[in-house]
Amino acid sequence: MTESVLMNRLARLAARPSGTCKPSDWTFCDEPLREPAEGEFVVKVSHISLDPAMRGWMNEGKSYIRPVAIGELMRAGGAGKVIASKHPGFQVGDEVAGTFGVQQYAVSDGKGVRKVDTRFAPLSTYLGALGMPGMTAYFGLLDIGKPKPGETVVVSGAAGAVGSIVGQIAKIKGCRAVGIAGGAEKCAYLTQKLGFDAAIDYKGEDVKAALKAHCPDGIHVYFDNVGGDILDAALSRLAMHARIVICGAISQYNNTTPVKGPANYLSLLVNRASMTGMVVFDYAERYAEGGREMAQWIAQGKLVAKEDVVQGGIDAFPDTLMKLFKGENFGKLVLAL
Amino acid sequence: MTESVLMNRLARLAARPSGTCKPSDWTFCDEPLREPAEGEFVVKVSHISLDPAMRGWMNEGKSYIRPVAIGELMRAGGAGKVIASKHPGFQVGDEVAGTFGVQQYAVSDGKGVRKVDTRFAPLSTYLGALGMPGMTAYFGLLDIGKPKPGETVVVSGAAGAVGSIVGQIAKIKGCRAVGIAGGAEKCAYLTQKLGFDAAIDYKGEDVKAALKAHCPDGIHVYFDNVGGDILDAALSRLAMHARIVICGAISQYNNTTPVKGPANYLSLLVNRASMTGMVVFDYAERYAEGGREMAQWIAQGKLVAKEDVVQGGIDAFPDTLMKLFKGENFGKLVLAL
Repeated sequence: MTESVLMNRLARLAARPSGTCKPSDWTFCDEPLREPAEGEFVVKVSHISLDPAMRGWMNEGKSYIRPVAIGELMRAGGAGKVIASKHPGFQVGDEVAGTFGVQQYAVSDGKGVRKVDTRFAPLSTYLGALGMPGMTAYFGLLDIGKPKPGETVVVSGAAGAVGSIVGQIAKIKGCRAVGIAGGAEKCAYLTQKLGFDAAIDYKGEDVKAALKAHCPDGIHVYFDNVGGDILDAALSRLAMHARIVICGAISQYNNTTPVKGPANYLSLLVNRASMTGMVVFDYAERYAEGGREMAQWIAQGKLVAKEDVVQGGIDAFPDTLMKLFKGENFGKLVLAL
Repeated sequence: MTESVLMNRLARLAARPSGTCKPSDWTFCDEPLREPAEGEFVVKVSHISLDPAMRGWMNEGKSYIRPVAIGELMRAGGAGKVIASKHPGFQVGDEVAGTFGVQQYAVSDGKGVRKVDTRFAPLSTYLGALGMPGMTAYFGLLDIGKPKPGETVVVSGAAGAVGSIVGQIAKIKGCRAVGIAGGAEKCAYLTQKLGFDAAIDYKGEDVKAALKAHCPDGIHVYFDNVGGDILDAALSRLAMHARIVICGAISQYNNTTPVKGPANYLSLLVNRASMTGMVVFDYAERYAEGGREMAQWIAQGKLVAKEDVVQGGIDAFPDTLMKLFKGENFGKLVLAL
């Protein structure tokens, strides 16, 4: 490491928000970066991943991962370059992705960190199609949704990091892909650039009626990122033996009222259908398998990886995150420092 | 058939109820029974099955079975004796079970009718443990719930026709069985007579707290007959990779307000759990397999088949049916004519 001490700007969780999160839920600090110990290395973080799941990490209570503690560094995926190393597996200059947090520099022991190859795809893609969102789409759709050629796959949050990949994999697997997204621009993008068969603008259309029109044989796989009324609309249009993948529920994350349960859940009974939750971390041992196939599809031009890269400093984190909940992002949302 | 014409009293659906069904939703008629044609036979119905699903059959709209039409004979399972036959497979004196409807006599072509052996179990049992409720419990629990020895199985409506069998099969399979039922008497019956490990009185206890106490390792299989708040309580206590079997939702069938969706459904995500609907008719080809094993368990004293037999005429049908929705039945509810 260099002789002079590096100052590291970072975001610490300051409050557990009720409802929508806001800039004052974090404090921004400048702190001297500690020296890496033996077996550690330092990453200069260049890209921070913004994910809907972050809202959940700010809450207390049991979930699939422990909450971020008050005063703790805000958890975040990220990517960057190794600038100092006392770890035999990582050299200065290596480009890496991992859970580095909302900060400029991270000291890491290498756990959960993977090296990436930017000759093949930009760093931001390793936070999107070739990162957690891509793995979520890949394993959620294929392992839980189990789509068969000719079936209809519907995905909500379809212009987002996960949804845009889900629809494209559905097409690669010979399915009909229908996306639900907010706004005409996103919908046009889905059908014109990503090859979706149809797109439904939930801000401008009656989703239930549109699903009826675009899914004449019913929905065989519904990949849900949003919950709420859109989940209920999808439940009302299930095909027999349909599979629903519960990946997220962004419409409910900032609720101050109780979560809206799916009133149409008895459609599961009528249609002998299933609704299954998935958490990508369970597939950690198979990331390499998913990553190889996704990378191949990108190389073959079958899969378009789109990132919405916002340029800014650490302090831009809260406003950038809020784009997700306002439905303003277009593809994988990344903050480039 | 006899020379004199038989008069047949039957219930026809008169109205589609909104909310709770009531006697005036049916009309009772006396009509001359038609002669059986070639390939048909006549059953004198002695037992009529009362099932929660009947409430759903009275509604319009798409479901797993077509609605009963206004003016049509009310659909019902039943059992009785063949009193006339022009069908080579059924002889006078044969005892049979089938979907004979709410009437004294049924003319049948034998479709869906099976012969039963009352030397082994009374006719009423063929409408319960050895009939549709038993098959529902057997295939729902084993095929969808997939309980493993040592796991905790929770069932709602546990003193009912399906629930009481679910808990007993869970015990046979080496699981911990916890039943949810209404009232101290039912709960005592579950633990003292049916071998459940614990019973929760939803009318007198905080179900969520009781589930926490009785399911220290969480719920591995939840078999739901009731929906509503009890489904939500079970969702709040799931073990990882739990399986929820959606068999029914009796708490919601008489609703005039929208169905209460399970607000805690995101527990499926947190716990990588699934919720799957089941309809017993899908297992028709395997009824013989299920029936054989259930009969063996009954013969071995491992499975107690309990029926709640109400004596009465066809006109007693509405009031008897309502016992189900008031939670007054105790075991399989049957009207003995």
